[in-house]
Amino acid sequence: MPTKPNNILFIMCDQLRWDYLSCYGHPHLQTPNIDALAKRGVRFTRANVQSPICGASRMSTYTGRYVQSHGAAWNGFPLKVGELTMGDYLRPLGMRTVLVGKTHMVADVEGMARLGVDPQSIIGVRVSECGFEPYERDDGLHAIGPEGRYDPQLPRYNRYLGDKGYDGDNPWHDWANAAAGDDHRLASGWAMRHARKPARVREEDSETPYMTRRALDFMREAGDAPWCLHLSYIKPHWPYVAPAPYNSLYGPGDVIAAVRSDGERRDPHPVYGAFMDHRVSRTFARDEVRAEVIPVYMGLIKQIDDQMGVLFREMEASGRLDDTVIVFTSDHGDYLGDHWLGEKDFFHEPSVKVPLIIADPSPAADATRGSICDELVEAIDLAPTFLHLAGGDPAQQTHRLEGRSLLPLIRGGPPPSWRRFTVSEYDYAMQPAAQKLNVAPADARLFMIADKRWKLIHAIGFRPMLFDLEADPDELHDLGAAADYSGECERLRAALAQWGLRQSQRTTRSDRQILNARGKSARRGILIGVWDESDVPAELWTAYDRRID
Amino acid sequence: MPTKPNNILFIMCDQLRWDYLSCYGHPHLQTPNIDALAKRGVRFTRANVQSPICGASRMSTYTGRYVQSHGAAWNGFPLKVGELTMGDYLRPLGMRTVLVGKTHMVADVEGMARLGVDPQSIIGVRVSECGFEPYERDDGLHAIGPEGRYDPQLPRYNRYLGDKGYDGDNPWHDWANAAAGDDHRLASGWAMRHARKPARVREEDSETPYMTRRALDFMREAGDAPWCLHLSYIKPHWPYVAPAPYNSLYGPGDVIAAVRSDGERRDPHPVYGAFMDHRVSRTFARDEVRAEVIPVYMGLIKQIDDQMGVLFREMEASGRLDDTVIVFTSDHGDYLGDHWLGEKDFFHEPSVKVPLIIADPSPAADATRGSICDELVEAIDLAPTFLHLAGGDPAQQTHRLEGRSLLPLIRGGPPPSWRRFTVSEYDYAMQPAAQKLNVAPADARLFMIADKRWKLIHAIGFRPMLFDLEADPDELHDLGAAADYSGECERLRAALAQWGLRQSQRTTRSDRQILNARGKSARRGILIGVWDESDVPAELWTAYDRRID
Repeated sequence: MPTKPNNILFIMCDQLRWDYLSCYGHPHLQTPNIDALAKRGVRFTRANVQSPICGASRMSTYTGRYVQSHGAAWNGFPLKVGELTMGDYLRPLGMRTVLVGKTHMVADVEGMARLGVDPQSIIGVRVSECGFEPYERDDGLHAIGPEGRYDPQLPRYNRYLGDKGYDGDNPWHDWANAAAGDDHRLASGWAMRHARKPARVREEDSETPYMTRRALDFMREAGDAPWCLHLSYIKPHWPYVAPAPYNSLYGPGDVIAAVRSDGERRDPHPVYGAFMDHRVSRTFARDEVRAEVIPVYMGLIKQIDDQMGVLFREMEASGRLDDTVIVFTSDHGDYLGDHWLGEKDFFHEPSVKVPLIIADPSPAADATRGSICDELVEAIDLAPTFLHLAGGDPAQQTHRLEGRSLLPLIRGGPPPSWRRFTVSEYDYAMQPAAQKLNVAPADARLFMIADKRWKLIHAIGFRPMLFDLEADPDELHDLGAAADYSGECERLRAALAQWGLRQSQRTTRSDRQILNARGKSARRGILIGVWDESDVPAELWTAYDRRID
Repeated sequence: MPTKPNNILFIMCDQLRWDYLSCYGHPHLQTPNIDALAKRGVRFTRANVQSPICGASRMSTYTGRYVQSHGAAWNGFPLKVGELTMGDYLRPLGMRTVLVGKTHMVADVEGMARLGVDPQSIIGVRVSECGFEPYERDDGLHAIGPEGRYDPQLPRYNRYLGDKGYDGDNPWHDWANAAAGDDHRLASGWAMRHARKPARVREEDSETPYMTRRALDFMREAGDAPWCLHLSYIKPHWPYVAPAPYNSLYGPGDVIAAVRSDGERRDPHPVYGAFMDHRVSRTFARDEVRAEVIPVYMGLIKQIDDQMGVLFREMEASGRLDDTVIVFTSDHGDYLGDHWLGEKDFFHEPSVKVPLIIADPSPAADATRGSICDELVEAIDLAPTFLHLAGGDPAQQTHRLEGRSLLPLIRGGPPPSWRRFTVSEYDYAMQPAAQKLNVAPADARLFMIADKRWKLIHAIGFRPMLFDLEADPDELHDLGAAADYSGECERLRAALAQWGLRQSQRTTRSDRQILNARGKSARRGILIGVWDESDVPAELWTAYDRRID
């Protein structure tokens, strides 16, 4: 890997479906700026997240490790102190790793206390912020209920809005995520019937342009030292509210039909059935909901695309397009009523597959510009890719990083052997489904394992689900109960079993250290199974041979 | 669990086979003091270690977690900072957790540096010493070779010997682990042909009595505060050298026949075959080696038993027998030529099974005194047992502790359901076998899964091995390649697959925390899937409803 760019701009959207971009084939939503990025880079068609939920997905992305390996299996489960993140890999190589936006990281306060790490110290902040230097941390979920705030941190964004004259204790909600309702009352974005009303905030002051400007602020201040900037938007994640004009750019006529069938509701897999029964699924099963929400979801994406235009133009002007690898992706998708589900949380393509575009300005990537890559790639591949871009050697970190560098796919043909299976996980212990099915927290876990054709969903304690992605690309026919397909189930289950037995915690010893240490203990005097001194070289006895009287 | 004793004395021998004690049936080796302990407590007949090698086994014992969970898979692989150990569970309950002897712990210096933990600080020492307060740390492996010391720490024991007039730079070797040879030269214990020669040290100054005295020193100094003392002997681990009279208490006539058959060497499983080819295996395959070494191995155990007599008499005199639960076990066994193998490292009973005796003075345990327990128990059960004894609730730690408290087996009948499978692991990446078989470090791993009758050994990349412990208690007939037994293999493989997918890293959130948190985010304002305000209780809207103009 010869050419080393200076910087990495790692853009993540939240809850952006893979197929809601025109370069991925959306028929009504034009995203010319993201499409242009794809023309400058490689567009991946089989990029999966490691868990279809914000927190777990992101912790996998930032650590380069599967959920079962890092353990932060759901939103709000702290990432344990000691897990390495992107910043831990990039910092020693001289690359700042900086955050603007969301991570959904919750600090392992108990673990830090046990180790005497002050959360306010430089190291403590690093541990608390998932390895990032928090230029601006904002998870974009400033909800308040009878028991208080969901996110105890007040965002800088609220101060920004206040300074601009937006009043109230929580302008994030009252202006950016609410509209004007009837009778001089707020129409909160938490009630989706208001989705198509315009947010009360001016477009320029809404979250997406604000975060774009914060990223540009950072770039201007950063100077010449190389950086990896994680620009992490909250949108198009709910509350589904957009400022004008994005609230009304699209209408019910632009909504593509839901991918679902009556067959899916007849005798579904018990876990799938329980997920269909979640409130959000029942809500999105209604056509009126889709007609109201999806146009705004599209508008929020359109706004992101426009902001990509702003961002890329500024970067072009400052020369940053020439020395910055740009990665564009999402943390998971959004069912939007497909398969009778809302939210994410399960493993159909609308949820587990994400857009992934990597544009690398180095000449080494010229050959792949504008191409698409159909290999099975995973969100955990980004950390090793960034390490690779920063001049590190991911092959020396395979005892920690479970993903693979994508550079060979970007700067050359596919490497000799790429992964044959992709794995994603979902912990539903926090969900009503676990309660309904009476599944204990430790067992409320789902595993997806898929190759390019077959997708198996393993639910502990239940039969598998199986989809033939070739014959049934819409995943409408669960073959997991059909005897004809028991061979496929067995094959994928065996691959999952092998995955489950992988080495994921031997993180204090690399393969190279092991190979280098093999057989060396004898040279430090440990002589095992030796009968006679002559069985081993004489030099090994030097410390043990002396005259006695 | 009503009665709470003050103290726990956790005695571990190193490399002590389960069957080299008279209470476990050895025909020639009488161990009356350990037998008496068994009469005062419960003797377990199916106690397995989590890995048949010192370091990995101990890290499992101290963390209460499988090797795949903690990652310190071999000797010298540091236990990662952040893993909780016995001390972390007992300290908050007011119980000191103290070490006299060996742990084989290697500190995660890199991890501590990353977190800014000073290895010399109280917390740093704790992390470095596996959670123990090191009253006396001594791994008993003070070997020296052309590249220096195996263990960089000089033992206090060397100073003790020096003060007693034993000369030289390393009296550990020159006096305690060497005999007088010919021509005024040392006969090093590292050459096993010298095994039956007496160590040059006086018996009272040899390692086992020294450590016993150190334990008694601690108990005298400890005062009334409750403690858990880990008295961890290096013997009967190699170098196989005993002081007089223990070097000559037994002779070749006391050596029981090797458990092995010619059939085992015909077309063995490739990994087993490669292990047979290790130098130590070839050495122990020779009858002259067994005849020389095993009598001394027995003598070293006899010395331990005599020291148990010293220890228990002193404890009786000081009242400690009345308020101290005593646990006696080993970190793994020793093949001693059985199955054509030396050392440990593989999964036949002489290696993976250990003696385990627990004597609990509380009246609650009166009913089980002198009984034996045939349940499948594991070394990882000790940490939750100790937590339980100290007044903690292991049920609240199942997200961290993978073992189960043995108290129900000691203070009552078996709990409603005990484990049906026991698992042990071995990482042979550091071994010549991996090189010979051309297996990459990450794949050089073996898993044993067994119930009370069947034992399967799963070697990544190879066929399984299978033993029928009922029909073939000596484990001489590997059925893993026989078509007749494919059903048993499949059943055990499926159980291993399920084990591999277990939740082991979600250590920052307990099951109880999850159950308590379920459905609570709405009360902090997160309203998912809500269409109309009336869909959820009005109180959830309080923070979102205001008058606007």
